[in-house]
Amino acid sequence: MAPTPHPFDSARDYEVRLASKLVKDAYPAEANVHFVQIDRLDPPKKDMIKYLEAEKHGLPLPAIPRVFYAYYWTNTLEFNKALVNVTVGHVITRTKLPKGVCGPLLPDDMMEWEEYCTNHPVVQAEIAKLKLPAGYTVRNDPWIYATDDPNERRPLVQFFMYVLAGNGHTESNHYSLPLKFSPVFECFSKKFIRMDYLPGGFDETTTPTGPWQQVPCVEYHPDLNGESIPREVKPLLITQPDGPSFTVEGGKVKWQGWEFRVSSSSREGFAVYDVSFKGRQVFYRISLSEMTVPYGDPRAPYHRKQAFDLGDCGFGTNGNHLNLGCDCLGTIKYMDGYGIHANGEPYVIPNTICMHEQDNGILYKHVNYRTNNAVVARKREFVVQTIATVANYEYVINLKFVNDGSIDIETRATGILSTMPIDENVKVPWGTIVGPNVMAAYHQHILSFRIDPAVDGHKNTVVFDDTLKLPRSKLNPYGIGFVSDRKYVEKAGYVEQSPFTNRTYKIINENVINPISKTPVGYKIAMPARQMILADDDSFNVKRAKFATQQVWVTKYRDHELFAAGEFTNQSQNDTGLGEWANGTDDVRNEDIVVWATLGFTHIPRVEDFPVMPVETHNIHLVPFNFFDKNPALDIPQSNQAFNKSTLYTGGKEEPACCKTKI
Amino acid sequence: MAPTPHPFDSARDYEVRLASKLVKDAYPAEANVHFVQIDRLDPPKKDMIKYLEAEKHGLPLPAIPRVFYAYYWTNTLEFNKALVNVTVGHVITRTKLPKGVCGPLLPDDMMEWEEYCTNHPVVQAEIAKLKLPAGYTVRNDPWIYATDDPNERRPLVQFFMYVLAGNGHTESNHYSLPLKFSPVFECFSKKFIRMDYLPGGFDETTTPTGPWQQVPCVEYHPDLNGESIPREVKPLLITQPDGPSFTVEGGKVKWQGWEFRVSSSSREGFAVYDVSFKGRQVFYRISLSEMTVPYGDPRAPYHRKQAFDLGDCGFGTNGNHLNLGCDCLGTIKYMDGYGIHANGEPYVIPNTICMHEQDNGILYKHVNYRTNNAVVARKREFVVQTIATVANYEYVINLKFVNDGSIDIETRATGILSTMPIDENVKVPWGTIVGPNVMAAYHQHILSFRIDPAVDGHKNTVVFDDTLKLPRSKLNPYGIGFVSDRKYVEKAGYVEQSPFTNRTYKIINENVINPISKTPVGYKIAMPARQMILADDDSFNVKRAKFATQQVWVTKYRDHELFAAGEFTNQSQNDTGLGEWANGTDDVRNEDIVVWATLGFTHIPRVEDFPVMPVETHNIHLVPFNFFDKNPALDIPQSNQAFNKSTLYTGGKEEPACCKTKI
Repeated sequence: MAPTPHPFDSARDYEVRLASKLVKDAYPAEANVHFVQIDRLDPPKKDMIKYLEAEKHGLPLPAIPRVFYAYYWTNTLEFNKALVNVTVGHVITRTKLPKGVCGPLLPDDMMEWEEYCTNHPVVQAEIAKLKLPAGYTVRNDPWIYATDDPNERRPLVQFFMYVLAGNGHTESNHYSLPLKFSPVFECFSKKFIRMDYLPGGFDETTTPTGPWQQVPCVEYHPDLNGESIPREVKPLLITQPDGPSFTVEGGKVKWQGWEFRVSSSSREGFAVYDVSFKGRQVFYRISLSEMTVPYGDPRAPYHRKQAFDLGDCGFGTNGNHLNLGCDCLGTIKYMDGYGIHANGEPYVIPNTICMHEQDNGILYKHVNYRTNNAVVARKREFVVQTIATVANYEYVINLKFVNDGSIDIETRATGILSTMPIDENVKVPWGTIVGPNVMAAYHQHILSFRIDPAVDGHKNTVVFDDTLKLPRSKLNPYGIGFVSDRKYVEKAGYVEQSPFTNRTYKIINENVINPISKTPVGYKIAMPARQMILADDDSFNVKRAKFATQQVWVTKYRDHELFAAGEFTNQSQNDTGLGEWANGTDDVRNEDIVVWATLGFTHIPRVEDFPVMPVETHNIHLVPFNFFDKNPALDIPQSNQAFNKSTLYTGGKEEPACCKTKI
Repeated sequence: MAPTPHPFDSARDYEVRLASKLVKDAYPAEANVHFVQIDRLDPPKKDMIKYLEAEKHGLPLPAIPRVFYAYYWTNTLEFNKALVNVTVGHVITRTKLPKGVCGPLLPDDMMEWEEYCTNHPVVQAEIAKLKLPAGYTVRNDPWIYATDDPNERRPLVQFFMYVLAGNGHTESNHYSLPLKFSPVFECFSKKFIRMDYLPGGFDETTTPTGPWQQVPCVEYHPDLNGESIPREVKPLLITQPDGPSFTVEGGKVKWQGWEFRVSSSSREGFAVYDVSFKGRQVFYRISLSEMTVPYGDPRAPYHRKQAFDLGDCGFGTNGNHLNLGCDCLGTIKYMDGYGIHANGEPYVIPNTICMHEQDNGILYKHVNYRTNNAVVARKREFVVQTIATVANYEYVINLKFVNDGSIDIETRATGILSTMPIDENVKVPWGTIVGPNVMAAYHQHILSFRIDPAVDGHKNTVVFDDTLKLPRSKLNPYGIGFVSDRKYVEKAGYVEQSPFTNRTYKIINENVINPISKTPVGYKIAMPARQMILADDDSFNVKRAKFATQQVWVTKYRDHELFAAGEFTNQSQNDTGLGEWANGTDDVRNEDIVVWATLGFTHIPRVEDFPVMPVETHNIHLVPFNFFDKNPALDIPQSNQAFNKSTLYTGGKEEPACCKTKI
């Protein structure tokens, strides 16, 4: 018998199995219950606060049941959600969701439909028209269908078709050879709905499928990419001879004064909980909440290209199996995730979260020029990393806990651009030609990070500070003065960006005053001002993703309000997340609040992004701001050679000593 | 006899000695020539282009004389500049500069004046009034005087006075104990000019000096900071068992396809020259050009706090002696810099530039979900680093060459805040209380980086691209389309920031078309939109630093136009740099141009920034944009355990295997 998991621990295999069994047992066999996602819910916060208090003081722990949700379809094409108490073993609720609500797609299903599509007679007939050279075949990527018709209520999937070059290699880059037809099927029933044809010119005009014009495939795989002379790179090894500075027990991490819990999540990849530094509470929960990727190519069917990578697919469900020495360097602790099969049986996704510490240069330094005595300390980070592959793209999410009490939320976008066919000698203003007859449309990656603060307690306030010129006066005769101006967020809503007034957002606790600065303790949310979603306000793209219209949102905390665009995003027509919760009426000043930080970047592809894209890195920093009574990193050991054991470079032909020492 | 230096090599000791001797010989002994800076000039670009071409093709090298400049005072308090050809050994010109022009301050002089000031009878009389406790003494920081009076033509220095706590430790943090009087002296003559008194309340009112009210000193030095229990941190070692991937010969660096030269500079710290990647020219020269630090406290004499850390002090002159294992990890190559004494004799500043390579996580990754085959490569950077201590502050400048053809210009601000006295129970809107009776005023750090491009040649153009919504139309029926709109910089001037149109700046070569994208090759300048200088347009702060008013400037290349605020900034009254060169008339399209990128950050101090400040890091990225015909990093070896030799974490109490494997 396994030990009872901590309420914040990842779902266990036996819990997933029990949840699916209880749900299946509630239906007749002929219902063919078909699961697409099963995971645990967070316990109610009010219960967890008591639990964490008891845990902190070593008191008896209140019993908190483990509750799971299950999304599943029945053979009547109805989509359902059940809540299951796996601690006592009963189904709490079973809800049939309104027609048109689609849950996330299941990887098993996608793989099956992918093959089914290619072999479908209508598609085969189209493929035949291509008259492909010997050895050349066709591969497809199933794509979420998204939305363009309020009356479309069927679960659909759109297949983008590509030529697979005739080199017989499984890793050939089909994204380099996009085709101009794109079938649409109904999910589960696999009914053929429609054949879409893709434009290749400068407008929306399409042409019937004809013989494929052979062009070279731009390959990324080392076996194929034609880089016959590999670049000479010497190993750079990171070792910790005395072991790492961190400990991980179950989901509990301790490192340099930081304490928190890590839990894998089918939808979010992972979440961290109950974060404290030097014994003081800072955050209750942090996770990626949603990401939408709208494309700027206006032509059908591309106008529907708007993925919600968490809600439509699942970041954990599509998490990579990370490998030692491949995805991070140093001493690595791994955690597993899991996926499920349609029958509710879980499978392990090994090592899908990795944790390690790394150096990041100088943290602070001062030299007294009178004595040349230097005080210098190094910045070190503890990284919690996961990587998800969502069809063509990869996303690396790094949560970095820094030894100065700050947290750096880092996103790295890599992988392969989503490509479209383009005819020779055609240019379009919404895309970049990245290879022969292949175009990558401009698009945006707009991520929402959900930050549930607990800055010295749960009653927090969001403020924003602008730095403003001081008018000339007797006090400011030379017109050089400037001051800080603070505003408070009183009601649930958003704060606009204002980079030119140096606007900074802070989460403060008005009930705790810093004894030095005489101001409320807080954490700053530092992120660059960015272009938000570009689509029309009354477009589906915006209606489905209100979170993508503003950079900072504040809502009142409510249990289970976790996902910025709402619980169900696949083919959604409205944002049922921040669109509803940021209601302008909830009081959010000195309340239990949630902050939603939108990190957006408009991606204008460059040729260098193909065939595989060097990371585009974007960050949000959470920085203690008048939280501590001095620099909290004064206790870290000084940086010196006895500790760091660096090596002096002696290679190359050095200059004659005369030039270096004769002065 | 030392070998003839390359035209881009750092100044040699014997060259500095010869330059100063030739200048001194041109004056009678009683002139007491007093040097403040001597360094080499860059050769005319037209000559260097020929030289570099010949060098590239192994042809005989044209002779290019080494020309030095010298700044010096004479005992008649006149400031002069000489140009000296040290190759043939003659003085080219000697120029007496107009009254009011001050050169940079010399560290030797500052140290001497610092002691002179404290011991001056007027200052001693003031100190006596403090009735300091036994063992407590006074220390001062000489500060550049800056400007508030068009008629003030004398070279002046302002001394900020502090109590040095009576702990007998040389490293005690005097910045924690600022005093309320601040004498002004004339430079060189050391004539006492005036005693300024500093306000301690909420306005400009000052009070006569009285007994000092004893308060605790907030210490940063490990001997004094009271951190009795050092944080437990395990070593993290970076080793390169097969040696580094770079070679450095003299000033020439080669690393993973990058080739460039590094030269130390008294004013700039260092500059890199003749930068190419994979055999293609990219930049002719990159360096920090100027930095201004205006303070927002409007009260006299703080209204004059506006440092120009390059022009007033010299970044190289104040460069740190870096130590192995302290300032970077791994295999380190060091380069020396030098300073001079007033008599023109040079002295070495050892190891003031360090170079090493480092890992920076994943560069690119893709997993084919059909086969689970992963392609993954790591981001590695070659870092050229220098650190300057300008009185209280430290600045770390990192130029990072990345293995994907991009360059990351990184600034890290650390050190100690410039502090002011503040009375108990007083708050001011332009500063943060960071310790007992000590306040740190809001200020800005505004840096100008000079980027002299050579993107596939010297004829380049700056463009800026906005991403704009496409209006609804037959082509865009759903209102989701967006396109890129390009504008060209035709005349010398600036480009405004526009983050909400995703404005990106690019340096392109209109004469070289990328065969894939069919667009001109280029490099993108990526930096966040930021608040620029806050002072009034007609304030001295702005008149002296026009560069600080806009984020991107373009000028036509001219030899010796290197410094954004002009050659002489100390007590300057006008910007004689971009203020003159960005004239709106020079053609800069498809010309030899220079781009000036202004990186600004408004620093609202937090308690955590005291007594020593965790780095505030800001970056400018130079990214190939349709420059290569595909991802130029496809030739780097795949990331795997055989190469990286990572370690699996096994510490801590792992979960029972059942929970991890039974699924």
